[in-house]
Amino acid sequence: MQNQDTICAVATGQGGAIGIIRVSGPDAIAMVDRIFTPTGSSLPLSGRKPYTLSFGQIKNIQGEIVDEVLVSLFRAPHSYTGEDAVEISCHGSSYILQQVMQLLINCGCRSAAPGEYTQRAFLNGKMDLSQAEAVADLIASNSEAAHRLAMNQMRGGFSKELGKLRDQLLHLTSLMELELDFSDHEELEFADRTELQTLATQIESLIGRLTDSFSTGNAIKNGVPVAIIGETNVGKSTLLNALVGEERAIVSDIHGTTRDVIEDTVNIKGLTFRFIDTAGIRATTDTIEALGIERSFQAIKQAAVVLWVVDQTIADKQIVELSNKVLPLCKDKQLILLLNKSDLKMSATSIGTINFPGNVHILSLSAKNKEGIDKLQDLLIEVTGISAISQTDVIVTNVRHYEALVSALESIRRVKEGLASELSVDFISQDLRECIYHLSDIVGEVTTNEVLGNIFNHFCVGK
Amino acid sequence: MQNQDTICAVATGQGGAIGIIRVSGPDAIAMVDRIFTPTGSSLPLSGRKPYTLSFGQIKNIQGEIVDEVLVSLFRAPHSYTGEDAVEISCHGSSYILQQVMQLLINCGCRSAAPGEYTQRAFLNGKMDLSQAEAVADLIASNSEAAHRLAMNQMRGGFSKELGKLRDQLLHLTSLMELELDFSDHEELEFADRTELQTLATQIESLIGRLTDSFSTGNAIKNGVPVAIIGETNVGKSTLLNALVGEERAIVSDIHGTTRDVIEDTVNIKGLTFRFIDTAGIRATTDTIEALGIERSFQAIKQAAVVLWVVDQTIADKQIVELSNKVLPLCKDKQLILLLNKSDLKMSATSIGTINFPGNVHILSLSAKNKEGIDKLQDLLIEVTGISAISQTDVIVTNVRHYEALVSALESIRRVKEGLASELSVDFISQDLRECIYHLSDIVGEVTTNEVLGNIFNHFCVGK
Repeated sequence: MQNQDTICAVATGQGGAIGIIRVSGPDAIAMVDRIFTPTGSSLPLSGRKPYTLSFGQIKNIQGEIVDEVLVSLFRAPHSYTGEDAVEISCHGSSYILQQVMQLLINCGCRSAAPGEYTQRAFLNGKMDLSQAEAVADLIASNSEAAHRLAMNQMRGGFSKELGKLRDQLLHLTSLMELELDFSDHEELEFADRTELQTLATQIESLIGRLTDSFSTGNAIKNGVPVAIIGETNVGKSTLLNALVGEERAIVSDIHGTTRDVIEDTVNIKGLTFRFIDTAGIRATTDTIEALGIERSFQAIKQAAVVLWVVDQTIADKQIVELSNKVLPLCKDKQLILLLNKSDLKMSATSIGTINFPGNVHILSLSAKNKEGIDKLQDLLIEVTGISAISQTDVIVTNVRHYEALVSALESIRRVKEGLASELSVDFISQDLRECIYHLSDIVGEVTTNEVLGNIFNHFCVGK
Repeated sequence: MQNQDTICAVATGQGGAIGIIRVSGPDAIAMVDRIFTPTGSSLPLSGRKPYTLSFGQIKNIQGEIVDEVLVSLFRAPHSYTGEDAVEISCHGSSYILQQVMQLLINCGCRSAAPGEYTQRAFLNGKMDLSQAEAVADLIASNSEAAHRLAMNQMRGGFSKELGKLRDQLLHLTSLMELELDFSDHEELEFADRTELQTLATQIESLIGRLTDSFSTGNAIKNGVPVAIIGETNVGKSTLLNALVGEERAIVSDIHGTTRDVIEDTVNIKGLTFRFIDTAGIRATTDTIEALGIERSFQAIKQAAVVLWVVDQTIADKQIVELSNKVLPLCKDKQLILLLNKSDLKMSATSIGTINFPGNVHILSLSAKNKEGIDKLQDLLIEVTGISAISQTDVIVTNVRHYEALVSALESIRRVKEGLASELSVDFISQDLRECIYHLSDIVGEVTTNEVLGNIFNHFCVGK
């Protein structure tokens, strides 16, 4: 058994009024009893009911009071880890927390590794691996959409979807393997091949939908990358400031002010966007600025959405100048052509004559006067294709899950091909088993210690 | 009534696995009930017992799950504030904490001001003002000694000591004022003047001891300031590094390397020392270094302990050169003369001939080889005069308390003078009342809203 020892860790961030130390393991209650003196009662924690709070003092070996604390008591399996557990709520002084940790360690407690509480919860069957991973995502979530995905995954939405797929696959496999058992009787065919082909296609489509959702999931988790490009002095930095709502980028009237790529994260209606402001595109002999321009093109490559800003007073000229450079790079992107400086006279008669690709959206606004910014925000939400995601939508956000799903997809495609080319049952059955293996990998049913280590090392200590 | 509303705040630091929101006030339980759905039971918090934990979900108005939480329930007066209170233990995501705070505020909760929980605890009679102040000290404590003082004060040690003084003073005053009531009968003298004089002297001595303890208390709370001085290239920075245990100051063989004053905090055997490394003292034409030297002398003025480092291979020369400059500045300080470079040949025959003041301690060590550092540490503890402080020692650490005690001391001295010069009873009684007033000020019995504001504004939010 790998979790027969008792672990402790500070579970709260530094600098608060309250600091919490989590103790979990078979000796958690006995160990805390050795350093905790309840106030107004001689009943030790071991004699108290779970899900109760006890007020008292933590004392050191000399009998000196280290802190006055509140202690929360949990008994296996009704705790986060599924083990006996105690949470000690101390005054939020790092000195005190360190002292209490030292006392626990002197009692035989071990300082917990990152994510070890959640790892124990997984190992004790309190949650599957994809739910455990969602705990870290939940703590890291900083937007409504990211929070929603993590919450759904933690509550088992993803696992449920995978469970359905696996049930179908197991049904398929058992039928195939029944044939294998009776392989001496070649005429026997328990599984109707046409039905199997239909089922495999359905499963392929389901897994395909999940792998497709990864780009959305990734955008939600890490933010949608948006490149802001255009010639110098068209108001790119002013636009970024209007979107960010503060003076983040340096703004001036001098051409080529923005020499470096500036990235800013903005939460628009519950979705995170990562705006990449770039140096203006123009012929230049200034080497630093030339580098900035190179980075602009790099930014387009990284972006999902491109905001091409033009000065609408000279829009015709600018569109003609750059369309050959910009449009070919934007083929697989969402392109928004922004006619900025709508407060000034428009000169954009050429727009109708340009052969824009189908994915272009054209919007006129004034970044300086903050007019039209709300329309741009709506358009950004619209072009991402991420409409309001409900708490029950299953979207893949985790690279590990994505990779397992891609492998599962390959296996199920081999199953389909095998069925089509009437391959022998044992080949098809092997591919089915592989597909099931990859799906099981996600929820942690076939996971190795190495994989577990990789996952939980990225957690914070105390979780 | 000033605390009839319900307040909420995040009570933990950022970035942990767990985040706690504290709710306190008459509607705390009802408000949390509106956003909290317990798991596995339909019993709302209002129907549950105090000092219990409930697991469940925080939901928003749309019924979406914001987080899965543990809720701690407290009922007046058995809570930190003395009011009904709920602590919500969430996943430590700032997004989630912000969402839960918003839900509480939508329910009519108010975002708490800094220190407002402790202020309510004080106003509800859960602790006196000096205990409340100790809560902030406790959270800020970063050494054993500072922690011990804060813990003693929070547990009422200081208040108890003041209470004894006030009882004696009230006894004195009541006797005096009894005479005042019978002032028509001049012959009546309820209070024996000799006894009164003795009692006043005792009280003066007690208050005097408390005011005297402030320099110790301040040193413990803020660290003992130690100036490291000496000529250039005697190894001052090497010494500081050996004490700090890391490469903090820049060390080189070039004279005058340390041009700025470097300050480093080191915890030695439970006491904090603030070491101030200074530029070497020597005649120089380099203006920046001259400024550094000026700062050396400033550092001596600020220090309680002066470490005068000399190169023992040329100790005679260096001691003669500087003793006229250094010794007059060290009259009221603890002076340690360090003969550094004990690994090299000694040349310090002059030491016996110098007329050192009584407070000098002489120690030989090698900072480079880290030999003798432990002896220096022991000596530092010794010269501060802060022997092991027990948890029951009463030491003043707070400027506000110190000032009140100084005022009380002045009043009691006037009482003594009045008694000696046989002043009329009403004058003496007035001074006694003033003395009691100042002592009451410390525990918060006569404190104004303005004073309260000043005190609790320095707390962190959530405490």
